[in-house]
Amino acid sequence: MTDAAASVDAHNIERLIEAFAALSEPGEGVTRLGYSALERQAHDLFASEMAGLGLKAAVDAAGNTIAELSPASASGARAIGTGSHLDSVPSGGRFDGIAGVCAAIETARVVVESGSAIRRPWRFVVFAAEEGARFGQACTGSRVIAGLTGAGDLDAFHDKDGVSLRQAMAEVGLDPAGCASAVWDPDEWHAFVELHIEQGNVLESSGTPIGVVESISGSSRLLVTLTGTASHTGGTPMHLRRDALAAAAECVLAGERLAKDREHHGTRVTVGRLDVHPGSITTIPGEVVFSVDVRDLDSQRQRSTARELLARFEGIAAERGVGIRSEVIGDTSPVILPTWVADAIAGAAVAEGLGYRMMSSGASHDAQQISRVTSTGMIFVPSKDGLSHVPEEWTSSQELAEGTRVLVRTLSALDAEEDRR
Amino acid sequence: MTDAAASVDAHNIERLIEAFAALSEPGEGVTRLGYSALERQAHDLFASEMAGLGLKAAVDAAGNTIAELSPASASGARAIGTGSHLDSVPSGGRFDGIAGVCAAIETARVVVESGSAIRRPWRFVVFAAEEGARFGQACTGSRVIAGLTGAGDLDAFHDKDGVSLRQAMAEVGLDPAGCASAVWDPDEWHAFVELHIEQGNVLESSGTPIGVVESISGSSRLLVTLTGTASHTGGTPMHLRRDALAAAAECVLAGERLAKDREHHGTRVTVGRLDVHPGSITTIPGEVVFSVDVRDLDSQRQRSTARELLARFEGIAAERGVGIRSEVIGDTSPVILPTWVADAIAGAAVAEGLGYRMMSSGASHDAQQISRVTSTGMIFVPSKDGLSHVPEEWTSSQELAEGTRVLVRTLSALDAEEDRR
Repeated sequence: MTDAAASVDAHNIERLIEAFAALSEPGEGVTRLGYSALERQAHDLFASEMAGLGLKAAVDAAGNTIAELSPASASGARAIGTGSHLDSVPSGGRFDGIAGVCAAIETARVVVESGSAIRRPWRFVVFAAEEGARFGQACTGSRVIAGLTGAGDLDAFHDKDGVSLRQAMAEVGLDPAGCASAVWDPDEWHAFVELHIEQGNVLESSGTPIGVVESISGSSRLLVTLTGTASHTGGTPMHLRRDALAAAAECVLAGERLAKDREHHGTRVTVGRLDVHPGSITTIPGEVVFSVDVRDLDSQRQRSTARELLARFEGIAAERGVGIRSEVIGDTSPVILPTWVADAIAGAAVAEGLGYRMMSSGASHDAQQISRVTSTGMIFVPSKDGLSHVPEEWTSSQELAEGTRVLVRTLSALDAEEDRR
Repeated sequence: MTDAAASVDAHNIERLIEAFAALSEPGEGVTRLGYSALERQAHDLFASEMAGLGLKAAVDAAGNTIAELSPASASGARAIGTGSHLDSVPSGGRFDGIAGVCAAIETARVVVESGSAIRRPWRFVVFAAEEGARFGQACTGSRVIAGLTGAGDLDAFHDKDGVSLRQAMAEVGLDPAGCASAVWDPDEWHAFVELHIEQGNVLESSGTPIGVVESISGSSRLLVTLTGTASHTGGTPMHLRRDALAAAAECVLAGERLAKDREHHGTRVTVGRLDVHPGSITTIPGEVVFSVDVRDLDSQRQRSTARELLARFEGIAAERGVGIRSEVIGDTSPVILPTWVADAIAGAAVAEGLGYRMMSSGASHDAQQISRVTSTGMIFVPSKDGLSHVPEEWTSSQELAEGTRVLVRTLSALDAEEDRR
């Protein structure tokens, strides 16, 4: 299998990155939202790459696409797997998720073409709708697989246009009612490894090609609506105003201040969406709707920060005579990934002569959900300037190839070892 | 002419209000933007009402619609006029501007039907594109009439979609190149009186039916663009962020604080539009564009406040490592209206047995521009709860009829008096 890792081809990875990048809405960067027709086209492209290698891909009820390379003789050994997602945020980049899918395709190619004997089934997976950008809740496909989201939860989430998760899934030909059939059986699995871009600048700034992820932040997401009184900007004196945007501005800064205080080292609070109504130059804003994303590696602090923020927002609203409504639109716990999978990745990096460092992930990942099903690891590759979720997102095909070599070696090592129980 | 004022019919005014309200984009309240097809339809409706009274309306190059009732025998006396505008802000109300046009139509009706002898030409005017909501610059039609905006200025203003004033005018069949032909000759004019809703709550809260406007605030309008770095909300630690929305939140509060300090009693600062890009829950905002509207009765303080705000915004941006660009998208000076016209209005209110109070207008009005051409007055009628630029905007037809009676009496008095020079 050492041969297989050595055959990883940066050009083939580059070809795949380009092919997926072409499947985007018009405009800056890549826009391929979860449960859109474009996301399904990208999954179809994955399936056709698998077919080219003689592997048949199947789509489950929640839109996850899975192909298996089976061992020549059924050993009864449990499966290993790798993969990531193909959906993007609005005006995002061409690597977030896609890098891990291209690494999975390239892994399948080198293993198939090397003709190496394998003991375990190898499963190549594309998770559906990983980004929380559209519905608030991230990792929908992998949450369904892990049994964390079921058919009964799909009406609770809506996109900007009011389309529910259930409707969106049905509109692209999936089977929201059949979610239960997509749940993975832990007894079938040995381990899962996801390759992903770092989306931060630790690897680049330290000149390290490989990150071995030990832990993944949780995230709590709120949608807050402030209701003031819209009126003419000229006719209403300052002291009689109930300006929803001025209240929201205080909330944005309160979130930033809380995340920067001494007790919140490592907490990340972001207001990424903020819509002002009616949004006219000469009308005092009557309503503002904004999102809050709270990330933390400490699950208790994550939830207490979200609660504390809501309390502060309510204080700000009360002070200004502005109404406030809020709802939790996403809640994922942080996870600690098992040491033995991380050790396997670190060992593979050493064997490939590549430097690595242990690190945590601020971003959520499908691996976080899959860790509920089986032992899971993550390989990070560098992000140029630490940028992600923007058109400037960039990782060289050389760096992607290095990560893929580590992935192939890690899976080979996991393939060779005995089942753990 | 006392008969004429007595014949003002609240039901007819109500009928007209309803007819104009029906010409709206779908959605909440009235949306009939300046230089839209709907605005032209509303002007056509005005022209057809005039035609019903035997008056022929003409549309000038900038889209202002003007009908004249001429005296039976040419006396050589200068004209008097009344009117207002028919465009609205997005999701605005049914009275802002429209009230004054309905009052003008009702005035024409009672004068024509009473068969009263008039000495002067009476002109009934609908100004085009008064609201600054679409292009930033308010009162475009009346500015063209006053020679304040010419054909050469029309490429400087753009709406949200990048359409220039020139394009918008051409698209609805007007003649932007011919603006100079729309300028009014001061020598033709004696006086102009505009009736308008107050858009504040001074009249309602004091139980006064008639406001006599002494002065109108000026307004300076800025469009500010803050450029930070968009990136993943999980991957970027708080201290490495250049969050354009956090910077904008500071600017919003800085504006509010400045307008509320001791030196700015009466200054009104509003951020009414604020657009966040990319506007995704999981992406740190990379760019925010917001409008600032500064209103003041003191022209020096109006301009110095706008300058001071820009300086503060630049300080905030520099502190956060965020880029800043700004442009002035509108600048109108405050005006003091001549006492003798205000006295004529006050006298008419007394004659009608209606209480009045002298007041200033925080909102801009076409009257402000027309005051450059001829002596101008304004009659305010109450706004329920002081609300304007919102669907809840409301003035009863009884209150509109009272204002119209004062308008008819005022114009009759101005008709009777000698030319002033």
